[in-house]
Amino acid sequence: MKKSFFALALLTVGGAAQAQSGVTVYGNIDLGVSKKTGGALTEGRRDNNRLGFKGVEDLGSGLKALFQLEIRYDPDIGTVEGVSRPLFQGQSRVGLQGDFGTVRIGRGLSAYQDSNVAFEPFRGTPSTAGFETDLMVAGYNSQPLDPAGSSANRFSNAVFYNSPVLAGLHLNVTVASKEALGNPVLIGRGTAAAPQYPANARLTSNPYSATLVYKAGMFGAMLASERNAAETRLWSVAASVQPSRDLKLMASYQSQDQDHTVAVNSVTRAWVVGANLDIGSGTLLAGYGRKSPDGVVPTKQIGVGYEYNLSTRTFLYADASQRKAATSVNFYGVGIHHRF
Amino acid sequence: MKKSFFALALLTVGGAAQAQSGVTVYGNIDLGVSKKTGGALTEGRRDNNRLGFKGVEDLGSGLKALFQLEIRYDPDIGTVEGVSRPLFQGQSRVGLQGDFGTVRIGRGLSAYQDSNVAFEPFRGTPSTAGFETDLMVAGYNSQPLDPAGSSANRFSNAVFYNSPVLAGLHLNVTVASKEALGNPVLIGRGTAAAPQYPANARLTSNPYSATLVYKAGMFGAMLASERNAAETRLWSVAASVQPSRDLKLMASYQSQDQDHTVAVNSVTRAWVVGANLDIGSGTLLAGYGRKSPDGVVPTKQIGVGYEYNLSTRTFLYADASQRKAATSVNFYGVGIHHRF
Amino acid sequence: MKKSFFALALLTVGGAAQAQSGVTVYGNIDLGVSKKTGGALTEGRRDNNRLGFKGVEDLGSGLKALFQLEIRYDPDIGTVEGVSRPLFQGQSRVGLQGDFGTVRIGRGLSAYQDSNVAFEPFRGTPSTAGFETDLMVAGYNSQPLDPAGSSANRFSNAVFYNSPVLAGLHLNVTVASKEALGNPVLIGRGTAAAPQYPANARLTSNPYSATLVYKAGMFGAMLASERNAAETRLWSVAASVQPSRDLKLMASYQSQDQDHTVAVNSVTRAWVVGANLDIGSGTLLAGYGRKSPDGVVPTKQIGVGYEYNLSTRTFLYADASQRKAATSVNFYGVGIHHRF
Repeated sequence: MKKSFFALALLTVGGAAQAQSGVTVYGNIDLGVSKKTGGALTEGRRDNNRLGFKGVEDLGSGLKALFQLEIRYDPDIGTVEGVSRPLFQGQSRVGLQGDFGTVRIGRGLSAYQDSNVAFEPFRGTPSTAGFETDLMVAGYNSQPLDPAGSSANRFSNAVFYNSPVLAGLHLNVTVASKEALGNPVLIGRGTAAAPQYPANARLTSNPYSATLVYKAGMFGAMLASERNAAETRLWSVAASVQPSRDLKLMASYQSQDQDHTVAVNSVTRAWVVGANLDIGSGTLLAGYGRKSPDGVVPTKQIGVGYEYNLSTRTFLYADASQRKAATSVNFYGVGIHHRF
Repeated sequence: MKKSFFALALLTVGGAAQAQSGVTVYGNIDLGVSKKTGGALTEGRRDNNRLGFKGVEDLGSGLKALFQLEIRYDPDIGTVEGVSRPLFQGQSRVGLQGDFGTVRIGRGLSAYQDSNVAFEPFRGTPSTAGFETDLMVAGYNSQPLDPAGSSANRFSNAVFYNSPVLAGLHLNVTVASKEALGNPVLIGRGTAAAPQYPANARLTSNPYSATLVYKAGMFGAMLASERNAAETRLWSVAASVQPSRDLKLMASYQSQDQDHTVAVNSVTRAWVVGANLDIGSGTLLAGYGRKSPDGVVPTKQIGVGYEYNLSTRTFLYADASQRKAATSVNFYGVGIHHRF
Repeated sequence: MKKSFFALALLTVGGAAQAQSGVTVYGNIDLGVSKKTGGALTEGRRDNNRLGFKGVEDLGSGLKALFQLEIRYDPDIGTVEGVSRPLFQGQSRVGLQGDFGTVRIGRGLSAYQDSNVAFEPFRGTPSTAGFETDLMVAGYNSQPLDPAGSSANRFSNAVFYNSPVLAGLHLNVTVASKEALGNPVLIGRGTAAAPQYPANARLTSNPYSATLVYKAGMFGAMLASERNAAETRLWSVAASVQPSRDLKLMASYQSQDQDHTVAVNSVTRAWVVGANLDIGSGTLLAGYGRKSPDGVVPTKQIGVGYEYNLSTRTFLYADASQRKAATSVNFYGVGIHHRF
């Protein structure tokens, strides 16, 4: 509702009353300097940067209401992420949690994009030395019909379900509406005159994403299936093992099929193996991955990083990687990560 | 002032000192799914969504300083409201409160748009099943010369006065400056070559809005008069009665005269009647309204809704409405509303 | 990292855990009405408006991690500052503080723009009656190659160092990367066909800014040198003295040399003298300044203001100024400033 004519009275006493609702302001800031083969020394993020607002309300009988709004930003230039992305690029969701699990509505990471980060050696960060953005998801885009500039791993206008954990198993399902969101033209298997997806076309199928995640003792595993707004299909399997408290080993395999919109070389396969090893006051991250589109030069990447903990909330890091595809690119970066 | 070279010192100790100033972070998130005749199932809001920051400072002698900054956003896609509206679309105001009442300066709801929500059966929300946006204000726009995409019920560059309550009476007055705000062309009674309001034209009159609100015991009433930036005039009367704690009945009538910019059928009249009835753990909302522009098919709407309270801060809702004008549209929606 | 599949668990318990990280929400809101010769009565700010988030984490051994994110906004119309500036136009920085001083990375005021405000009679505010924006810095722009609409006194992609205070001396150094930021064409000493700085050109030199600030007892002083992205050079000296607790006198001189991009009249010199005098419950601000580009009519300005304190956080103000250049402009303004 809009502010009523009693708004002033509410405003006056609101300080105390509203404070009890317990909005948590949280986030992180990650910034460093890096250099790529042939490039200048630049400043930028290794991880995504967040400023968020969230809260949980106990409704009694084991039921909770929860919400989360998450700004994403680029601290090197002070803008929202990518200059033009949505203010709450991170997520904007509200929902209920109870014995049945959690149901949320809004915009957020698809089940697959949310689950796979546990099997990526750089913790799912978009670090150039890491594997999440290009290798891990095989260049897959969860929202190819969203306006240009949007990130590639979220569903808008979606419902998110997370089951309770049963015998270590956890089911996550995301389904989006068929709403057009001002999407750009996607020629696909059509022509410029008759594109497969005209501008702002209503979707023909509901995008969905589902993961079954297992976690018990030292073992973790994931089975995933997703179909995006352009009916590209992806499936993935991943597993991790922690033979000791200091070491986590992980591996994943994924395959995407763009047959609905791409006529040739429509299948892309990728795998990534990696490890996290606690050494001294920090953690060593290492991984190797390959992506093999049919008929195209495969991409190979090796990446290593070290996170030196100044506290549980703050660490310094150094990364290096070599990526070989049609051309080869080396990358070096150092920086600071602070959580608040 | 800009940060001085003592800023670091301030930063270091600021955590404690600033915390005392007691900024309250508040807001709400409202999201559901709905369907209109001929449309797809879509996700979207029933109420406006807010993330705000506000505070009150006691200046002594009954004087208070107060501020409020209110982000409005669309959680289905994570953007600011309407993708392109001002960040603080809700309001951005600062002022003083004392024995004389409250004086604020900035941008916010006009006195009329602020007061009338108490007489609208859907509490002034922009719900499709409700009456606020189209019926209640007869399609009236408080800021017709603001840039495209702005909402229709605020004054920018304004001063807001709210009197103290005297014998149940409360006077609210809003006056805006004549500043041009990058306004678009409004042809009005001019021609394309010589529009009545050229682009970015300075206003010829100060927009104002005034309401006299009465509230005592079971009765409430409002008298309102407003003139917008294009000199459209609106007046309204409204009343409510609460025969019991469970029931509130309300009615309103409004008339807008666009004679300054519209040559034919310049007068629009509307009335809305409605009721709020507490049933079980929730509230039933119901209303009927008509809008009758001269010489145009009148618009008639009936709307019902039910809000099921999970707590004082969270409810689920279901709405349905039928709107008859040149064409007829049925609407159904369900969702969740959470306040924080 | 992205949200893992444990995000929900974190969300649930996050309220308590995250609250301990102690994000401080702070800011100010400043708004008033003013009139210039030949202009309408308009509403607008005297000072910049901020809504910020900051925090300090004690890392032990005298080491601290600190961050600060600062939104800037225009409360008269509810937008981010200048409608299109970066969300965190104020600053977005993270860093470490210890015996070595403070090192931060991100976007913020250059050392010069940060230090000079202590020597400006209107406290460095952009008030029309004040001297900061035009006179004090001689119209100098710290970021001439940033996208149109950016403010003129920040470095993006920069590293900021502030030394510890030693014998009253304080060294501040800012160095920015050579990264292109989508900068517009700057013809400079080139031609339209071959501009000196083409669109999005990588910089040829690292922008830097350095100040040496002295503060001890009643005396303060500053030596400054800066070179911006278009290799314009600026140097400045400034001093202040406080003969009593009630009175502060200040003076500054600055010279900028645009020889790198401007062929004629490339040198601009400016000086400003001013005083702050506590009178009653407020402070009188007064200043006089001149700017003398070679071969161009000099600009002269006299400005006075009075800040009447309602509390340590809130004051009312009245300003007046006369500015003489090719044309003469008088300015009058009153308003309120509230810090939270």
